[in-house]
Amino acid sequence: MRNIALRLRYDGTAYHGWQIQRDQDTVQQQLQQALTKLCCHEVKIVGCGRTDAGVHAERYCANFRSDTRIPIDRLPLAINGQLPEDICVQAAIEAPEDFNSILSCKKKEYTYLIYNSRIKDPFLRSRAWFYPSPLKRDVMREAASMFVGTHDFAAVRSVGTETKTTVRTVYYYEVEGEGPIFRLRVCANGFLYNMARAMAGTVIYASEGKIRPGDIPGLLEKGDRRLAGPTVPACGLYMTRLWYDGAVGEMMERAGDAM
Amino acid sequence: MRNIALRLRYDGTAYHGWQIQRDQDTVQQQLQQALTKLCCHEVKIVGCGRTDAGVHAERYCANFRSDTRIPIDRLPLAINGQLPEDICVQAAIEAPEDFNSILSCKKKEYTYLIYNSRIKDPFLRSRAWFYPSPLKRDVMREAASMFVGTHDFAAVRSVGTETKTTVRTVYYYEVEGEGPIFRLRVCANGFLYNMARAMAGTVIYASEGKIRPGDIPGLLEKGDRRLAGPTVPACGLYMTRLWYDGAVGEMMERAGDAM
Repeated sequence: MRNIALRLRYDGTAYHGWQIQRDQDTVQQQLQQALTKLCCHEVKIVGCGRTDAGVHAERYCANFRSDTRIPIDRLPLAINGQLPEDICVQAAIEAPEDFNSILSCKKKEYTYLIYNSRIKDPFLRSRAWFYPSPLKRDVMREAASMFVGTHDFAAVRSVGTETKTTVRTVYYYEVEGEGPIFRLRVCANGFLYNMARAMAGTVIYASEGKIRPGDIPGLLEKGDRRLAGPTVPACGLYMTRLWYDGAVGEMMERAGDAM
Repeated sequence: MRNIALRLRYDGTAYHGWQIQRDQDTVQQQLQQALTKLCCHEVKIVGCGRTDAGVHAERYCANFRSDTRIPIDRLPLAINGQLPEDICVQAAIEAPEDFNSILSCKKKEYTYLIYNSRIKDPFLRSRAWFYPSPLKRDVMREAASMFVGTHDFAAVRSVGTETKTTVRTVYYYEVEGEGPIFRLRVCANGFLYNMARAMAGTVIYASEGKIRPGDIPGLLEKGDRRLAGPTVPACGLYMTRLWYDGAVGEMMERAGDAM
């Protein structure tokens, strides 16, 4: 059986997240339907992580096993022909036999997009969190930097998913963008459930003066979710980058939109 | 009666254009409902131009007369509270008694957005025209430049709206953007029905080698719609800039999204 890795991009607005759920429309469900139809046998898809309802992906990696004879370079267009317009396959590659989208993933980057203006932007509805009070970029940068390193992140997760340990390593956490646009880019070796959104909420808390950036290390040490900021809305969150070894890693880094 | 000018921004995807039509949802209709509710009397709105079904506006100007006592600086948020999320008022100003959004308009700019890639972008569906064959930026630039000046534009309009003359002046027509993004920005003292879309179609025609850029002056002179390129889809078209004298002109030029 071929082990095929896909690079996906999706607008998550219409979906109840990535993972297949009974009676809910999900991205994995859409992809599974498309692939089952195309490959003429039932297909099981492994995704690089769960994304919640309304969360988007600029880049996402999934793999599946099939003996389909469709040439690898024709697969993206063939699959896209079966997918709705808010999900697309940008690239496909023949992956090593033991490749697994979630287990082989070294690092991930999420970006949280905030539109900081008094007036909403019609073109950013469902694509960014609309936040109508002035944000303090410097305070947010300082707060974000406090998360970098290896820590127990229990204070910034929602309980719900089983995990062996709540210790993770954050490699960087940057506050980018200009004017009304704030992009919070965070890279880690793994993310706990709701961790990216609770971290963004804590950075906002610091901007609002509800905590000081210097409080964050102590807050992480205590591991008490109630001391950190709120879980901010899903619509601002994007999976933006994934790191893998070898050819899959190269596929995920390639500019996806060249002619 | 106060004469109030508004700066609007809308995602036109869900609407049958600007102009009120029986049994159709339009932007003017939504705005009229919102203002009538807010002002407690029937309101008539003048818009700066008709936009077709699916056409967007980064900036749009409309005015209406009312004796409402709502302070001018509170109007945008008050109106937005009554509008759907794909239409918003960014600014409001007390205009001179004789101001009229369409008659007082000196120049307009439309931008046509093309996404030139083999694979669709889920985030640009309904926001750009997806064009999957390679486009020639240089040929398009040369073709676009041929429209600049005062000409009879009958060859690049759709019949349907009455007009005294089909002569207009195009001040510039630029091809901007990088990689898969092409932005065709055109400024004129007025646009005939479908003119911006037929001009974009003619520029694409030149890129496809179906005409040469040098054929465009002759094509305009003949005034034969069949010699020019097709009317390209509405989803790529944005009204992007409007020029007026005085305070309304300043309002339309101000950065709309500062805190």
